Amino acid sequence: MITHPTLLLDKDKCLANIQRMIEKAKQSNTLLRPHFKTHQSAEVGEYFKDFEVNCCTVSSVKMAGYFAQNGWTDITVAFPVNLLEWSALDQLASKINLNIVVENQEAIHYLEKQLSNPVGVYIKTDTGYGRTGIDAENYKLFQQLLTQLKTCKKLIFIGFLCHAGHTYSAASVTEINHILNESRQKLLALKTFMAGDFPLIQLSYGDTPSCSIGDDFSDFDEIRPGNFVFYDEMQTRLGSCQRSDIAVSLICPVVAKHPERNEVVVHGGAVHLSKDSVLDANGKPYYGIAVAFNGTTWNSEDVIGHVSKVSQEHGIITPHNNRIETIQTGDLIAILPIHSCLTANLMKSYQLTSGETLKMLL
Amino acid sequence: MITHPTLLLDKDKCLANIQRMIEKAKQSNTLLRPHFKTHQSAEVGEYFKDFEVNCCTVSSVKMAGYFAQNGWTDITVAFPVNLLEWSALDQLASKINLNIVVENQEAIHYLEKQLSNPVGVYIKTDTGYGRTGIDAENYKLFQQLLTQLKTCKKLIFIGFLCHAGHTYSAASVTEINHILNESRQKLLALKTFMAGDFPLIQLSYGDTPSCSIGDDFSDFDEIRPGNFVFYDEMQTRLGSCQRSDIAVSLICPVVAKHPERNEVVVHGGAVHLSKDSVLDANGKPYYGIAVAFNGTTWNSEDVIGHVSKVSQEHGIITPHNNRIETIQTGDLIAILPIHSCLTANLMKSYQLTSGETLKMLL
Repeated sequence: MITHPTLLLDKDKCLANIQRMIEKAKQSNTLLRPHFKTHQSAEVGEYFKDFEVNCCTVSSVKMAGYFAQNGWTDITVAFPVNLLEWSALDQLASKINLNIVVENQEAIHYLEKQLSNPVGVYIKTDTGYGRTGIDAENYKLFQQLLTQLKTCKKLIFIGFLCHAGHTYSAASVTEINHILNESRQKLLALKTFMAGDFPLIQLSYGDTPSCSIGDDFSDFDEIRPGNFVFYDEMQTRLGSCQRSDIAVSLICPVVAKHPERNEVVVHGGAVHLSKDSVLDANGKPYYGIAVAFNGTTWNSEDVIGHVSKVSQEHGIITPHNNRIETIQTGDLIAILPIHSCLTANLMKSYQLTSGETLKMLL
Repeated sequence: MITHPTLLLDKDKCLANIQRMIEKAKQSNTLLRPHFKTHQSAEVGEYFKDFEVNCCTVSSVKMAGYFAQNGWTDITVAFPVNLLEWSALDQLASKINLNIVVENQEAIHYLEKQLSNPVGVYIKTDTGYGRTGIDAENYKLFQQLLTQLKTCKKLIFIGFLCHAGHTYSAASVTEINHILNESRQKLLALKTFMAGDFPLIQLSYGDTPSCSIGDDFSDFDEIRPGNFVFYDEMQTRLGSCQRSDIAVSLICPVVAKHPERNEVVVHGGAVHLSKDSVLDANGKPYYGIAVAFNGTTWNSEDVIGHVSKVSQEHGIITPHNNRIETIQTGDLIAILPIHSCLTANLMKSYQLTSGETLKMLL
């Protein structure tokens, strides 16, 4: 019996999401190197191992250490390398096949001097997102970095790594496909330009919207989606998944009702769901989709309403139609998160619909 | 040496914040029952004990359990009572002086039936915030609940509890004082109306902006501010504190620089700071204030710029003037959080500027 905010995981949905992405990668003859920042759980990692996935992506050195301790021996830290953590990286690199991401000469110079153990190196390549990385058309800077990397003994150049995060602000599936194609063209052009001196350049490509919506990844050596393992309301809105594919929901107790303003108050707020939001049809932010919970699992077809506000511990649900009449204090309601990565990171454990508890990185 | 995102706590600033609020409460001859949801740390709780504070407020049963285990024997759970947790409440009430908050007849009826141990009961009273509680002018409903409570053996009625959270959207200090006065008037009128049958009604009043900006709390039996222990950029903007009063900052490594768009990338994002934001003068959201860090502590006067974007692990700082020229990859920058409660909840531990580590509720 659930009595307090609990992150419920539907293992069957999760496995179906994994299998779909593995089949997609296979069809394109590309490697799936899933990003584990979404689930941060050794046990969910095992689900991937059962599909013969033996490599993964993480977003911090801490996360790399956690998965290394849990048997992962081929890990890419897909975040601009943090020079201050060179010693922890060096220790990890003595035990596993560790890849890092650089985007400037200082990092290459510093790490080549500091490290004792070889690490694989990607250059972070920006195909239009504008968060990190070198502009994919700045060939001059790529040439400088590649020339520098050629002299390195510890930093072993692998290729170009891109996260096309601008798919998250795309207005349509067509636009996501356009971003994917544009990114592909830029990466291929860059690879071709460098091919004379560097014939074995690999391309690593990320982001769940591209990888969920696109079909052809044969030009990439690997893809690194992460969120697809659970999906969420943001991905549903983008067209990456159906709402029924979402594999996690936050189960919340109803603690108050305010029929006069059509609001239901649940224990489930910013410390459970996060403050991430998407906009409804009227441009108003919402923080989750409340659906019916039957005591064991949720029904994503049976929508109660939007989570219209969150504060630290409170969630305010605005039920559709006259649905509020059927809701009582003491009921449990399931909330499909806007951004499952942030919700999982806050909740720090999962309860399977079968009852078992899964731990994650603390 | 800090190498990764670390929540630094300046104990002197924290103690000064506590002392200021204690003196304020004393001047009004009212009790300070500080809300511990901000720090969630037994060790920070001890700072209050050193000032002879022996009671506290929390926002969940879990948090009540944690502080009870750490020697707190007088705790109010200031959240509409979660009926599903009656058994955990009952166990706690067998050990400590536990107070809960109700706002409907069902809760009173159910708990009176279920509990074996007496609990103190406040009725949640809404003076205009509109999140939870009974409208302070709905005398009829208050009369119903009080009549019901009069027959209870386990639920011991104490008084009315109010959190005037609408101070957080106030445009000025004057408006915050207005909200405080309006709330006071409504609570006093309600108390007077009920005084014939219930002469000993207590008033419990919350929220950091009111308690920081207001002067006179003598009409309240207790005040329950929480955030003041650390303060943050949101409180600075509201006028509750000076920026130099903020007692926590997130120390973040610089991992990349993009002078062409005047952006510095740090390791420090939504999983560290949260996604809470306030609007700048142009109506654009920002997620923290980046200030200089000297290896031991930060200088809140030496502002580097705004945190203009956050994603899961990334923070993007837009430095003022030509400040970007002085920043290098591998530097450490301090970020004053927008909302210290959510940042502390994410970070799960503090490092004192003296080096010691403080744990908190996991």
